Amino acid sequence: MFKGTSEHLKKLGITGPTLVVDEARARANIARMADKARRSSVAFRPHFKTHQSVRIAGWFADAGVTAITVSSLAMAEKFAEAGWQDITIAFLLNPLEAARIGQLADYLARRGGRLGVTVDSLEAAAFTTGFEADVWVKIDTGYGRTGVRWDDAAALTKIAGDATGLLTHTGHSYHARGGEGLLELWAETVARLQSARENAGRPDLKLSAGDTPCCCTVDDFTGVDEVRPGNFVFGDLMQVQIGSMATTDIAAAVALPVIGVYPDRGQVVVHGGGVHLSKEMLVEGDRTIYGKLGTLNPMGSLGTVVDEGPVVSLSQEHGIIDLQANHGLGIGDLVVVW
Amino acid sequence: MFKGTSEHLKKLGITGPTLVVDEARARANIARMADKARRSSVAFRPHFKTHQSVRIAGWFADAGVTAITVSSLAMAEKFAEAGWQDITIAFLLNPLEAARIGQLADYLARRGGRLGVTVDSLEAAAFTTGFEADVWVKIDTGYGRTGVRWDDAAALTKIAGDATGLLTHTGHSYHARGGEGLLELWAETVARLQSARENAGRPDLKLSAGDTPCCCTVDDFTGVDEVRPGNFVFGDLMQVQIGSMATTDIAAAVALPVIGVYPDRGQVVVHGGGVHLSKEMLVEGDRTIYGKLGTLNPMGSLGTVVDEGPVVSLSQEHGIIDLQANHGLGIGDLVVVW
Repeated sequence: MFKGTSEHLKKLGITGPTLVVDEARARANIARMADKARRSSVAFRPHFKTHQSVRIAGWFADAGVTAITVSSLAMAEKFAEAGWQDITIAFLLNPLEAARIGQLADYLARRGGRLGVTVDSLEAAAFTTGFEADVWVKIDTGYGRTGVRWDDAAALTKIAGDATGLLTHTGHSYHARGGEGLLELWAETVARLQSARENAGRPDLKLSAGDTPCCCTVDDFTGVDEVRPGNFVFGDLMQVQIGSMATTDIAAAVALPVIGVYPDRGQVVVHGGGVHLSKEMLVEGDRTIYGKLGTLNPMGSLGTVVDEGPVVSLSQEHGIIDLQANHGLGIGDLVVVW
Repeated sequence: MFKGTSEHLKKLGITGPTLVVDEARARANIARMADKARRSSVAFRPHFKTHQSVRIAGWFADAGVTAITVSSLAMAEKFAEAGWQDITIAFLLNPLEAARIGQLADYLARRGGRLGVTVDSLEAAAFTTGFEADVWVKIDTGYGRTGVRWDDAAALTKIAGDATGLLTHTGHSYHARGGEGLLELWAETVARLQSARENAGRPDLKLSAGDTPCCCTVDDFTGVDEVRPGNFVFGDLMQVQIGSMATTDIAAAVALPVIGVYPDRGQVVVHGGGVHLSKEMLVEGDRTIYGKLGTLNPMGSLGTVVDEGPVVSLSQEHGIIDLQANHGLGIGDLVVVW
């Protein structure tokens, strides 16, 4: 099972840690989300921080996407350079970058495009008066990281000023497990955004929401004006655990060379550590893992994930994989970790 | 306290997440370790994966260092390009990179230099016969990640062949707390390496060891032929917790802009997430943190760390810092996280 995958990766000329993307699956994930937004008559402004790739951005363009979300000024500049003209930085404005933000806003405006910036204080909002941009007020609908609380009418009235809209990120959807909780969370998010709009006294404000767990689960986005999911393009085992995506939707994995085989302890060691896989963990019962071995199909698309091949430990450059003895892998073989 | 640090960082022109290195402290850390190796009559081959910087490498050269350790072929190629000629890749040889390794080995040999490679199997050792390199056999002295077990005489006899020496990494020193445990671990490591050499039946084999916790704690390296610590150049709060370095030895921190201030919940949010700080955690009593606020001295050197300013949560780009209300920080100020 693993030998065929290894042979295929070798034919591709892979020798070290390499991101493997299944284009057909990623395009299907994009098309599905774009369709759902269209059917809901809601704008689709996908978050590009997941892939940060100009080439993959082209797959979104092919699906009719023209408006995007990014999480830093540098990312906004990169995609502006690549020709994207309608960009929201869904990350609180850093006053130290105000001059550069202004330059980018003007650059996009001159081309008929538009920069969106995000603030949650009058202090930061004061920096947005010098340039032509959409100003989104970040709303805390329960995540508790940044934003004006949806029920803080006094603050909302003051800051709404001539803002474009209200924007939230429901990061706590990652703690949900199963469809029902996500449907409830989405309903709560929409209700709180609408309530924030009432509290601000500006019925014309646009509403922007949308994390991957909720957006993959909800059938209809009616109630907000735009959605901004990002992770759905690749998915991962976390989305599978949450219940928002299927294993067969996962469109990205990492190819890693086997550098050590230890039959006595039932483990192989790969060149692939925290710098390649990140130290994001998945808790499964009483074990904590960093990914699982998967396979490639004969034609090179991503195959299936193997529950018996968990990555149980990561250091900077090394990954340790628990694997039954008769796996057939040798030093110099390649594996894919999902 | 934090305002002065912020003003200083602004004068340096910092606007976003930026690594701050205290050159005087780093040079002192290097000099101390180089002196200790000299007094022990043991070769000093510092690990460069910690900094990966050609400029900081120059500080090592100034301290008389000519031999280095790296953890990947790409890093070896980079430092060879920068003029370093005696390089050990202390990472198991990946057969898929054998041709490139051979080219680098020949490049260094032509200049009177030397490449060292590391193996723990006959399978991998077979790939080293085609080029001129030192071959180190990786020994597992108890860490349990890679290597031939020090007490596996049968395997050691077979693989020692015409190897240069035996090399170990005592990664489990990071679980030790306090000097005595580290002294015991070092003694055990040296004894097991010597025992491995006996088991291999090759009394001429060189012995290479040395992680930062042990190397900072032990006074005399006698018993091995070379030491390869890396983290000691910067240190961090983990080394302080282990008991191997003092807070005043820490030579690197990260400057981050404040993008949100939330007096109600006693927190500030910075632009600085897992991609800037890594998700390495420090467990302190019943809290898990990702770093602490520190200060700069008036002249710009690193000051002290502030226990009341822990980074309590990290997402991709955001960090949340718990901080008492009267900290004086505003949006657009800069902080340093240790």
